[in-house]
Amino acid sequence: MKKTSTRLADGRELIYYDVRDDVVRDAVDRRPLDPIATASAVRTDPLLGEFVTIASHRQSRTYHPPADECPLCPSDGDRLSEIPDRSYDVAVFENRFPSLAGDAGRCEVVCFTPDHDASFADLTDERAGLVLEAWADRTAELSQLDSVRQVFCFENRGAEIGVTLGHPHGQIYGYPDVTPRTAQTLRSLAAHRERTGRNLFADVLDAELAGERVVLAGGHWVAFVPYAARWPYEVHLYPKRQVPDLLGLDEAARTEFAQIYLELLRRFDRIFGEGEPPTPYIAAWHQAPFGPLAEFDVRRDEFALHLELFTIRRTSGKLKFLAGSESGMGAFINDVPPEAAAARLREVASS
Amino acid sequence: MKKTSTRLADGRELIYYDVRDDVVRDAVDRRPLDPIATASAVRTDPLLGEFVTIASHRQSRTYHPPADECPLCPSDGDRLSEIPDRSYDVAVFENRFPSLAGDAGRCEVVCFTPDHDASFADLTDERAGLVLEAWADRTAELSQLDSVRQVFCFENRGAEIGVTLGHPHGQIYGYPDVTPRTAQTLRSLAAHRERTGRNLFADVLDAELAGERVVLAGGHWVAFVPYAARWPYEVHLYPKRQVPDLLGLDEAARTEFAQIYLELLRRFDRIFGEGEPPTPYIAAWHQAPFGPLAEFDVRRDEFALHLELFTIRRTSGKLKFLAGSESGMGAFINDVPPEAAAARLREVASS
Repeated sequence: MKKTSTRLADGRELIYYDVRDDVVRDAVDRRPLDPIATASAVRTDPLLGEFVTIASHRQSRTYHPPADECPLCPSDGDRLSEIPDRSYDVAVFENRFPSLAGDAGRCEVVCFTPDHDASFADLTDERAGLVLEAWADRTAELSQLDSVRQVFCFENRGAEIGVTLGHPHGQIYGYPDVTPRTAQTLRSLAAHRERTGRNLFADVLDAELAGERVVLAGGHWVAFVPYAARWPYEVHLYPKRQVPDLLGLDEAARTEFAQIYLELLRRFDRIFGEGEPPTPYIAAWHQAPFGPLAEFDVRRDEFALHLELFTIRRTSGKLKFLAGSESGMGAFINDVPPEAAAARLREVASS
Repeated sequence: MKKTSTRLADGRELIYYDVRDDVVRDAVDRRPLDPIATASAVRTDPLLGEFVTIASHRQSRTYHPPADECPLCPSDGDRLSEIPDRSYDVAVFENRFPSLAGDAGRCEVVCFTPDHDASFADLTDERAGLVLEAWADRTAELSQLDSVRQVFCFENRGAEIGVTLGHPHGQIYGYPDVTPRTAQTLRSLAAHRERTGRNLFADVLDAELAGERVVLAGGHWVAFVPYAARWPYEVHLYPKRQVPDLLGLDEAARTEFAQIYLELLRRFDRIFGEGEPPTPYIAAWHQAPFGPLAEFDVRRDEFALHLELFTIRRTSGKLKFLAGSESGMGAFINDVPPEAAAARLREVASS
């Protein structure tokens, strides 16, 4: 794997990750870009004790551009994009319209492939493995920033969940603080250890491995629909050897990841049968925050890296909306029993 | 106000609330309805400590029926709906496809008006006041059920947030336990009292009243955009005299409510300018749970009844989606500064 760091015309970082060690990435960004003023501010909600980011500079961000103006395709002659080179394997750059910026963190875009019409599930094992290397490398880099306490690698896929660029890509958010969801998990970890002396993640994994909701298991990874799934089809993917973040994965787990994850994504596209458009999904890496976690009474290595993959489609042509109960009260209603979701995800395995 | 309780053909409760005391509601449900098997189950997510309801009987629920088959219009000749009478003012009935049922709580539908094409904002002050009476009465009734610990009155408005029936209506959920969102607020209340000796809601209200985000204030109610708003346009409406639930409102507050709330809803429909379709919104009443709250170290009367009204539209034709950051990490990004939202909501006041 070769890594090449450079800068875009407005000073933002761009990093190429290539499979081959002999590629040269020296193309220069020829666009006349003005620096963008960003003004993210973090505010804490007093009733919930959770932070909310106010990012008022984003309303004018790029919105469903035509394919021939895609900012994530490689540049080609006079068609200049966010990637100055005429090709790339995986490219990561700072978002021009970041939700988090300055003291409030950092946002990056990860281009999974130069092929505009592909999706993550179309990648080869080798290229999917390269994306994993990029995620791990960015996690290491962002963890060094004073403005970043937690690194979140994720992919939103599908216009149904608000994706405004069709080109296959994901994002990385570096948050200035522990996110509300992770903070809650850390408190559960501490409470469980206090009560039982054991690790909550290990207990959950043991219970799921012995149950009826396992979807797929390899030598190093296991995927299951969780007992209390919130989403119609939701899968949690854990390395069998508990590690706090992507940096902790050993070579064997890294190698096997691609085949397991690609198989899961391909099954997701088959859940609703032939002729159904690609399944919209969110894929979210949960990693331990960086720095001491004494305020939660837990250590970093008590956390278990895992990926949560879920769709908002509940049946052919119908979406699960977060309406009053979910958005108002945080009380999720799921119409698909987790055991049925797991059975379906086993049924649509590749032959 | 007159209240008439009856039963539908499958045994579900139906309650009419009428302005006039002399109306007679004795129409019989003539539909051949089979009882519906409901199988809601509540499961607790071990990592977050929150309950999720699995409601597998709901996938076949009514989905965007044509207007002439609307189940919420009054019955008319051979067109039989959920409301056997040929007219009504406000009608409440048990949902035929409940998310919560049996030990897992209860779900009711509130029809705001017999006029299929109206919306809540079109109601007269008198009729809006009648809806408030119905909400308060249902809160009292549901609080008596062993299966209900918290009563949530709300309205989802607009297909954009998943509303599948166009007829103006809201819902009431009786949850079997304190909802995740309310539990979090109760913990904040206890922590704030411990730290300061004061009531968190009172402190928030004092701060907002002195600030620049007040949208509308009457003698008995005040509406503001909260400091850390999660949604592009979000308003919190509090009675000035703190009460734990709708039952605590006095006559003066009940009378003034209609004019304040209707004005807020009408402003919501004007946020995005002329020619824009009606604003999708969620309106959510936050009430204290019933029964002792010793597990949270708070008393019921420390809670402050309020309504949260918000839209997912962020600008003309564009929605705020809950994607990776919100759904994965609970970290909200809001593109509209709360001060700008408040200014806009003052600007579109009725002349």
